[in-house]
Amino acid sequence: MSHDTFGHLFRVTTWGESHGPAIGCVVDGCPPGLPIGESDLQIWLDRRKPGGNRFVTQRKESDTAQILSGVFEGVTTGTPISILIANEDARSKDYGEIADRFRPGHADYAYFAKYGVRDHRGGGRSSARETAARVAAGGVARLVLGPEIRIRAAVVQIGPHRVSRERWDWDEIERNPFWCPDSTIAGTWEGFLDKTRKSGSSCGAVVEVHAEGVPAGWGAPLYGKLDAELAAALMSINAAKGVEVGAGFAAAELSGEENADEMRMGEHGPEFLSNHAGGILGGVSTGQALIARVAFKPTSSILTPRRTVDITGAEVEVATRGRHDPCVGIRGAPVVEAMTACVLADAFLRHRGQTGGGAFQPGRPGRL
Amino acid sequence: MSHDTFGHLFRVTTWGESHGPAIGCVVDGCPPGLPIGESDLQIWLDRRKPGGNRFVTQRKESDTAQILSGVFEGVTTGTPISILIANEDARSKDYGEIADRFRPGHADYAYFAKYGVRDHRGGGRSSARETAARVAAGGVARLVLGPEIRIRAAVVQIGPHRVSRERWDWDEIERNPFWCPDSTIAGTWEGFLDKTRKSGSSCGAVVEVHAEGVPAGWGAPLYGKLDAELAAALMSINAAKGVEVGAGFAAAELSGEENADEMRMGEHGPEFLSNHAGGILGGVSTGQALIARVAFKPTSSILTPRRTVDITGAEVEVATRGRHDPCVGIRGAPVVEAMTACVLADAFLRHRGQTGGGAFQPGRPGRL
Amino acid sequence: MSHDTFGHLFRVTTWGESHGPAIGCVVDGCPPGLPIGESDLQIWLDRRKPGGNRFVTQRKESDTAQILSGVFEGVTTGTPISILIANEDARSKDYGEIADRFRPGHADYAYFAKYGVRDHRGGGRSSARETAARVAAGGVARLVLGPEIRIRAAVVQIGPHRVSRERWDWDEIERNPFWCPDSTIAGTWEGFLDKTRKSGSSCGAVVEVHAEGVPAGWGAPLYGKLDAELAAALMSINAAKGVEVGAGFAAAELSGEENADEMRMGEHGPEFLSNHAGGILGGVSTGQALIARVAFKPTSSILTPRRTVDITGAEVEVATRGRHDPCVGIRGAPVVEAMTACVLADAFLRHRGQTGGGAFQPGRPGRL
Amino acid sequence: MSHDTFGHLFRVTTWGESHGPAIGCVVDGCPPGLPIGESDLQIWLDRRKPGGNRFVTQRKESDTAQILSGVFEGVTTGTPISILIANEDARSKDYGEIADRFRPGHADYAYFAKYGVRDHRGGGRSSARETAARVAAGGVARLVLGPEIRIRAAVVQIGPHRVSRERWDWDEIERNPFWCPDSTIAGTWEGFLDKTRKSGSSCGAVVEVHAEGVPAGWGAPLYGKLDAELAAALMSINAAKGVEVGAGFAAAELSGEENADEMRMGEHGPEFLSNHAGGILGGVSTGQALIARVAFKPTSSILTPRRTVDITGAEVEVATRGRHDPCVGIRGAPVVEAMTACVLADAFLRHRGQTGGGAFQPGRPGRL
Repeated sequence: MSHDTFGHLFRVTTWGESHGPAIGCVVDGCPPGLPIGESDLQIWLDRRKPGGNRFVTQRKESDTAQILSGVFEGVTTGTPISILIANEDARSKDYGEIADRFRPGHADYAYFAKYGVRDHRGGGRSSARETAARVAAGGVARLVLGPEIRIRAAVVQIGPHRVSRERWDWDEIERNPFWCPDSTIAGTWEGFLDKTRKSGSSCGAVVEVHAEGVPAGWGAPLYGKLDAELAAALMSINAAKGVEVGAGFAAAELSGEENADEMRMGEHGPEFLSNHAGGILGGVSTGQALIARVAFKPTSSILTPRRTVDITGAEVEVATRGRHDPCVGIRGAPVVEAMTACVLADAFLRHRGQTGGGAFQPGRPGRL
Repeated sequence: MSHDTFGHLFRVTTWGESHGPAIGCVVDGCPPGLPIGESDLQIWLDRRKPGGNRFVTQRKESDTAQILSGVFEGVTTGTPISILIANEDARSKDYGEIADRFRPGHADYAYFAKYGVRDHRGGGRSSARETAARVAAGGVARLVLGPEIRIRAAVVQIGPHRVSRERWDWDEIERNPFWCPDSTIAGTWEGFLDKTRKSGSSCGAVVEVHAEGVPAGWGAPLYGKLDAELAAALMSINAAKGVEVGAGFAAAELSGEENADEMRMGEHGPEFLSNHAGGILGGVSTGQALIARVAFKPTSSILTPRRTVDITGAEVEVATRGRHDPCVGIRGAPVVEAMTACVLADAFLRHRGQTGGGAFQPGRPGRL
Repeated sequence: MSHDTFGHLFRVTTWGESHGPAIGCVVDGCPPGLPIGESDLQIWLDRRKPGGNRFVTQRKESDTAQILSGVFEGVTTGTPISILIANEDARSKDYGEIADRFRPGHADYAYFAKYGVRDHRGGGRSSARETAARVAAGGVARLVLGPEIRIRAAVVQIGPHRVSRERWDWDEIERNPFWCPDSTIAGTWEGFLDKTRKSGSSCGAVVEVHAEGVPAGWGAPLYGKLDAELAAALMSINAAKGVEVGAGFAAAELSGEENADEMRMGEHGPEFLSNHAGGILGGVSTGQALIARVAFKPTSSILTPRRTVDITGAEVEVATRGRHDPCVGIRGAPVVEAMTACVLADAFLRHRGQTGGGAFQPGRPGRL
Repeated sequence: MSHDTFGHLFRVTTWGESHGPAIGCVVDGCPPGLPIGESDLQIWLDRRKPGGNRFVTQRKESDTAQILSGVFEGVTTGTPISILIANEDARSKDYGEIADRFRPGHADYAYFAKYGVRDHRGGGRSSARETAARVAAGGVARLVLGPEIRIRAAVVQIGPHRVSRERWDWDEIERNPFWCPDSTIAGTWEGFLDKTRKSGSSCGAVVEVHAEGVPAGWGAPLYGKLDAELAAALMSINAAKGVEVGAGFAAAELSGEENADEMRMGEHGPEFLSNHAGGILGGVSTGQALIARVAFKPTSSILTPRRTVDITGAEVEVATRGRHDPCVGIRGAPVVEAMTACVLADAFLRHRGQTGGGAFQPGRPGRL
């Protein structure tokens, strides 16, 4: 429960600051016997890694994951997996000015109010750098889930520009630096982001995640609802301001007839005729694709001087000098995937714990 | 962590089904010495109580809270407070037809897939009736927070009709059956809901909650973020499909300059010039009003027959006969208040535990 | 984590005071589909029930368990099982004198120091009456474990008189009121207890529990060690002052050769040639009988006036008038069984969650 | 809850194997603003460090603690403190023979049964080397508790030889390699241990810990009892087989008059006339010294060949070659201190969370 751990049976604890020697995580409760290597984590870390193009922060980090425990002769042992990622390119001097000034939109003031002390360098603990540890943990979670569960995120909105559902093509995501499934809007975004970046401003984004292959029966009613845990996990990502599942906020405008997904029997069992639920009913997975969206606010680090106060109570101005992402939502996509993987791995283990695993299906005796 | 408990130091466990003998909750970790009586809970339960007008379910329940433990001579003792609310007007025979059929949009199919067995009467554990226990717990949480923290919810959208921010008047909420702060739109809603109700349909809603008086410093970074815990708590409410804090999804369309709230010194300390953050930065409260919104889907219980399957795998139709709310979001408002109160009470105790309580303020030595 | 819950996946929350209207518990995380009725709990409650003979408290309680939720048509649904036990024979007036005086050996002073307020009637929350809720929960846990796991406790020491291991006969336990497996020492105890009771004094005891049929592989290294969880569970029982597993404190006097249990292959797999480990190695069950002992201090309620202070700081004397057990350890036996059952049920579900269940065995491929 | 974390508000997660690159821990929930340096941890690590004399393992480890996060400019920031201790002297080749054989008394067989895979080198996760991480965490806990709380452990029994209470002198502990408070018995132990060591055998021990200066009011009734949490924490240490508080198992032989500690008023408030309770009543501290004892079994690593089986199911013999402690209880003393410190730090923060801190005292208004 303390503040830096999430999950129950599959449990992740992260640690580290932006400009300390390293960041990392401890993954506890992982099933034993899973083949794993550092490369299984690195493929995901590489997708989150900074410095890859002009639309993300220019900080250069190899984000190399070192596994320090919990793995023996290439398989998980069931004991805690400690993962360490060194900080290689911290330029703390960029941040001297903000040691005493509270940057608007950042955690600076709130941390000061709470703790009376903070590691201001690069935002310290509140830096998006922490999300590398989440991505590494997500890599372990994916191994727990296995290849039949496919988790993919896409950026579906940057500033006011949204992707077209008609043009959606998952393959496009690999072809542009925006995790954009719509090649047309990707062009629009490029111009929009260049303008944003050059003006020293920033913009927000919405990320959508799909988890396909999740069997029916994971999650639990009420306080252990799969959507509640997903909401917490996604809202815990830096800069997240909203989370929705399935139809989400748009459900408020639907009628009961439109919203409730009807069912028929398909070849392999029941099928839903639509997916307004986003794959979750009553907090429990239905076997449909799990679909959620996260809204990211615009990066609070901007070049324009902004009014604020300092720790002496003086009214001052502050502009951000350090390297940063103009649109933090873009690199949020792999983090959204990772958090979804962790929530699902935990739900899987807990479901198996309480019930033995598998699901009941209409017309079939016993658990699948 | 199990599935029916939430909170850490201020921890609530609920139990009970719609048509069992009773529902209830156990509130653990409550500070000792707080004056409390059943009437302190009843005032909030009465606001959630069904049967009050034609826009909510016609089930008649007095929702009388009995305190069975944890209170001695009118004050809390610090030991668990067990609260029991009898079910008085369960009509299980209304539900015979659905024993074997999965109502679209309901938890029926997901529960079956998970458990292989379910109490179908009135939805069993998935019934919104469970929220009475939350409201009772919220009543305790408000006593922990004290009168200086004011938590109020309003319904801000029903179907496509949204309140006007200009016409917002908190006093209006007591004058209409919709928790509507805008008397003009309340009239629109009345017609819209009557039409919905008469056609046997249902509609969605959005509820907004404000918590004023929350001091700076509550919450924690990352996995213990106040907004992450609020997201989980609000998403755990039946029929919730989305949660947002402050500017929420709209933040995706803002620029960094627009979104980040600037600060100046006010009479009693720092003040923010806007509140896009919704009172939380970096997961920690800022001293501004905490503002969040929850989207509720339309009630899945509708009179129109809908296609589904039954537990034998046969394709059937089902229509809901039992009494229900045409717009579950309306009675969601007091539940949103209660969950917010519980999250804040827990955050308060945890903040006090880790730091001793109080907040640092610019220009002042020591903790307030 | 709050203070009145234990377990992780199989989680029990208890509530209630000695002289309130009722006590009870909520059992969360129970697997679905288990046939269960109130009689499955009552058989265990009847074994703990007070008033049965002259060696236990004369308070008359039927200790009737009512199941209020989580069970539908005779089977568990996987949702929380709320169990209520009414208090029927509370005589609060017996306790008037101790409202302001701290009884030596009781929780009175410590509760006052912590909370500043306490329900003094019958010890309030610290009363051994709370253990009825544990026994009810243990009844559920036994259903989770199934009949192949047999959990039995015996009293092995009262005052200075210990049972003989040579004369040990489990059947004897049903033939005397002391849970004594040794008919010879049972006679000694009878005289000793009569003398103790008549002199208004009290005495301590040691209870030993055996859990047979526990498969190898339950538990976890270090902080989740099966023995660590058992130690916490048993030490949480009122009046417990010590816990040991296997050879326990006597292991300090053994040599490595004597203590480490050797192994050979038996008909159905590996067998240990002794059981100093008490069925647990490295925190994980070995397949041998799990054996633990709990020391109970003498009941602190005695008729002899004792020196103490009152809440005004005055030096006073206090003698106990209310009904009580002269040797609380006797009725501790069913509670020790219940706690052991709960710890094992939780270990079973968590093991199944992390690994899928079953155990590896030398010479056999795959999990059993 | 997963398996490698303990504590609630002050929470410690450890990781690492005996022969991996490093071990370590993450301390979460530490109050902010505490001055801390690596030397504050090193003083305690040095007391646990192997290789110091002929009575402990000859493995040479500097046990240098590196703080990787959570500390800024010499003070804690309230964010997680990651501590890393490199493994410098692992000789894995010593352990080749045991890769496939289950050493009696060790976790080997139980781990295999659970996980099907284990890092056999030096016992992997079950190695006492893990306790270095506990000692480092305990160093942080001591800073949380402050200098007014003094936690000291002594070895009170090795094999059959017990210290004399009359000769007890805390200063003696620094003068012999056994943490022995009795100079006379220390001489006896030296001979006994030399004989044990030379014969390739091992012996058990009992460690006693005293925590002085703990104020009244810490802990909680029942499942959060300070003694229950202490029991779990101490039983979680490798090789621990029993835990007792205050009079412990001896309480079973006392009468109620002998056992219950009477009270009188002292100069600074109430005083107890004896301490059979070990400083805890009803699970809550009383202000007296907290006293507990832990029994350690003899090290299972012995030179004598022992009968066992291997993973193919063959009956074999095994003798231990790797370096080890002949009496693991000796180096258990600093670990017992560390675990006690962690339990108390957590109890302190939770008490402060629920109540605001301080204690009520007879005759004084309000909380101290």
